[in-house]
Amino acid sequence: MEKRRMGALLIFLATVQGSLAGIPHEIHPLRPRSGSAGELLRGVSCLSWRLGVETNNIKSWSTVPRECEGYVGHYMLGHQYREDSEVVAREAVLYATSLKLAGDGKDVWVLDIDETSLSNLPYYAKHGFGVEPYNSTQFDEWVMTGEAPALPETLKLYRELLKLGIKPIFLTGRSEDQRKITTTNLRNAGYHKWEMLILKGSTYSGKTAVAYKSNERRKVEESGYRIVGNIGDQWSDVLGTHFGNRTFKLPDPLYYIS
Amino acid sequence: MEKRRMGALLIFLATVQGSLAGIPHEIHPLRPRSGSAGELLRGVSCLSWRLGVETNNIKSWSTVPRECEGYVGHYMLGHQYREDSEVVAREAVLYATSLKLAGDGKDVWVLDIDETSLSNLPYYAKHGFGVEPYNSTQFDEWVMTGEAPALPETLKLYRELLKLGIKPIFLTGRSEDQRKITTTNLRNAGYHKWEMLILKGSTYSGKTAVAYKSNERRKVEESGYRIVGNIGDQWSDVLGTHFGNRTFKLPDPLYYIS
Repeated sequence: MEKRRMGALLIFLATVQGSLAGIPHEIHPLRPRSGSAGELLRGVSCLSWRLGVETNNIKSWSTVPRECEGYVGHYMLGHQYREDSEVVAREAVLYATSLKLAGDGKDVWVLDIDETSLSNLPYYAKHGFGVEPYNSTQFDEWVMTGEAPALPETLKLYRELLKLGIKPIFLTGRSEDQRKITTTNLRNAGYHKWEMLILKGSTYSGKTAVAYKSNERRKVEESGYRIVGNIGDQWSDVLGTHFGNRTFKLPDPLYYIS
Repeated sequence: MEKRRMGALLIFLATVQGSLAGIPHEIHPLRPRSGSAGELLRGVSCLSWRLGVETNNIKSWSTVPRECEGYVGHYMLGHQYREDSEVVAREAVLYATSLKLAGDGKDVWVLDIDETSLSNLPYYAKHGFGVEPYNSTQFDEWVMTGEAPALPETLKLYRELLKLGIKPIFLTGRSEDQRKITTTNLRNAGYHKWEMLILKGSTYSGKTAVAYKSNERRKVEESGYRIVGNIGDQWSDVLGTHFGNRTFKLPDPLYYIS
């Protein structure tokens, strides 16, 4: 067995806790620790770093601090990430259920894809949990496998939205030439219907996610849709303009997209 | 010694860790536990509840869930709250230091007061850490003592801002008739200079904090000031309009203000 950087820890072939959407992946020889007490990082804990990230106080960071690799790995593979996601999805369902809908088919919910609808944890578990600099070639190879499992909490929200008659619109930073594999992956992961799947066209090259997503949401609204909700793992999914009637921010301590 | 609800815990006369701004307060017979692994709350931990609150996923809550009193108490009295605050203040200082300032005396920073510049932890430690419904009579009695200590991390930021020539503007939900005691309290806690101290006038009665603060910030900008930064413990401090060039959100799991 390959010797990992986090060698001092007990070695197990762990599956993602609760197996993401029923797809078992043996992804990392790390046994999740319970709890969230963090390793120390220049005087503050990785727990404080993560809260700073999740509250958008720490912005424009490029990689997870090396000291926090073990912490982030334990968080992502353990119960806490799933519980934190569950709280967000539960609030979103409560909110969606409380809405008085027009019933004219124009109520939509915007969902991001990566780390929102689908999980790339099998990839990140093999690439240092965000400690390694982003490698677009390697990440695109992973995307092209089409094997990303659903984030179960978002899949649950998605199913509730369909039941309520709120139509899902996927809005992703994935590029237009990944449309086919993304469609396949979404279907394999349990997402079978959507009103639109918006991928990033080449005209947005060099633009921020905030600019791209705001402009696409504007077009959605100008087509007569009402964005009643919006969920993503990045603040750039839910800031900007035309972000919808209420936004939800899922946890993501792996990477930052502006 | 009075027997507390959290009786099973070891009883100590604890001071706020690190003593808030050098003012020692013996405020609660609870010895802080380290770490943040939370008690269970309807299937999710209080840690997940707190993250949901801090990321604005859980909104419009009236009181801390009773199951989380112990958890929130430990968090607030222990190291984690201070570290979480430190990360925010440190990012704010880094950002402020990076600014190219015009040097014309028009660069200002908006600071909220309660749980931002001053801490009401001595009060909340005696009132269930947010579990008890808000009692304006009792809280106002506490305010009128003028004994709230500084949140040390914000005081540090404040001093850096003064050094940089960025003028502080306090913008608070405290009412206009609390101007005198608030001035006294700020000075006693170490805040000696400011450009403006804006309190909530009676015309805003019934208005949300978002509406009140947005409108007052608009007036600040119309007076020729540039709001280069804005810090508060509530999302209503940093959302709305005219919120400034960059915002910072301090932790506060004690109460929610819309």
